Amino acid sequence: MEIERKFLVLSDQYKRLGSSELISQGYLNSDKNRTVRVRIQGSKATLTIKSATVEISREEYEYEIPLNDAKELLNRVCEKPIIEKTRYKIEYQNFVWEVDEFFGDNLGLVVAEIELEYPEQKFNKPDWIGEEVSHDQRYFNSSLIKNPFKNWHPIVNKNL
Amino acid sequence: MEIERKFLVLSDQYKRLGSSELISQGYLNSDKNRTVRVRIQGSKATLTIKSATVEISREEYEYEIPLNDAKELLNRVCEKPIIEKTRYKIEYQNFVWEVDEFFGDNLGLVVAEIELEYPEQKFNKPDWIGEEVSHDQRYFNSSLIKNPFKNWHPIVNKNL
Repeated sequence: MEIERKFLVLSDQYKRLGSSELISQGYLNSDKNRTVRVRIQGSKATLTIKSATVEISREEYEYEIPLNDAKELLNRVCEKPIIEKTRYKIEYQNFVWEVDEFFGDNLGLVVAEIELEYPEQKFNKPDWIGEEVSHDQRYFNSSLIKNPFKNWHPIVNKNL
Repeated sequence: MEIERKFLVLSDQYKRLGSSELISQGYLNSDKNRTVRVRIQGSKATLTIKSATVEISREEYEYEIPLNDAKELLNRVCEKPIIEKTRYKIEYQNFVWEVDEFFGDNLGLVVAEIELEYPEQKFNKPDWIGEEVSHDQRYFNSSLIKNPFKNWHPIVNKNL
């Protein structure tokens, strides 16, 4: 079970606070009811199945796969485009915040996520964390391949 | 790379010629461009990704997954319905024929498959093998969940 909350960011302060890694990911299914994701992060490749999101929770099944399989799947089998982003990991008061800076057609989009153990779990937000967008489906990575950030109405980009 | 030819059968002679095993399988994606299949066969569970079929070939990536994950995925995450079938394996002149007898909405459908090493590879057919249906997309397992055998025009069932 994955329980996640997602926020916009108010500044690029996070860049100085943690380590970063490049992520390439693509989808073998990106529909509303289930997603199947291929991801390369550093030298590790995974295949991840997620059920439909109910509120902020969904079931998640993740398997490590050979790096070469992942490269072939991203190049030849996944839906296009592939999503590329830099992920920063920042520790703050016993939680890890993951901040994703997107490239390509999603350039300019930056979102921060925190994973919880149960939906009502309390946490404090660093002061560079902005508006919550957990329930806005446009921010799902699986939505960004169909409707990338560059196509959104300019009003959404007002903070950037 | 998977290279497969598929045939109808002319009699139930195959039942006496090999061993059989129950298969339950479901799809996390069943579209024309890529399929993602969850399968339980005996006590073994697999996740299999296949690219689009070109002629009789397609790329295939298969990973073993925990049996319990597969049960949950079939029950909660896969597209409905789940496909259930009995598979017979029959050796004939150095090839293995797999004969699938379908249940449920596909009851009455029986297909035999042979896997080749290269598309032009020669093989002899047992005398219970009938018409070739390799190129008929209706017989794809991923098609049978959308358009099960019971909905086909009666003329197709003339041999049964």
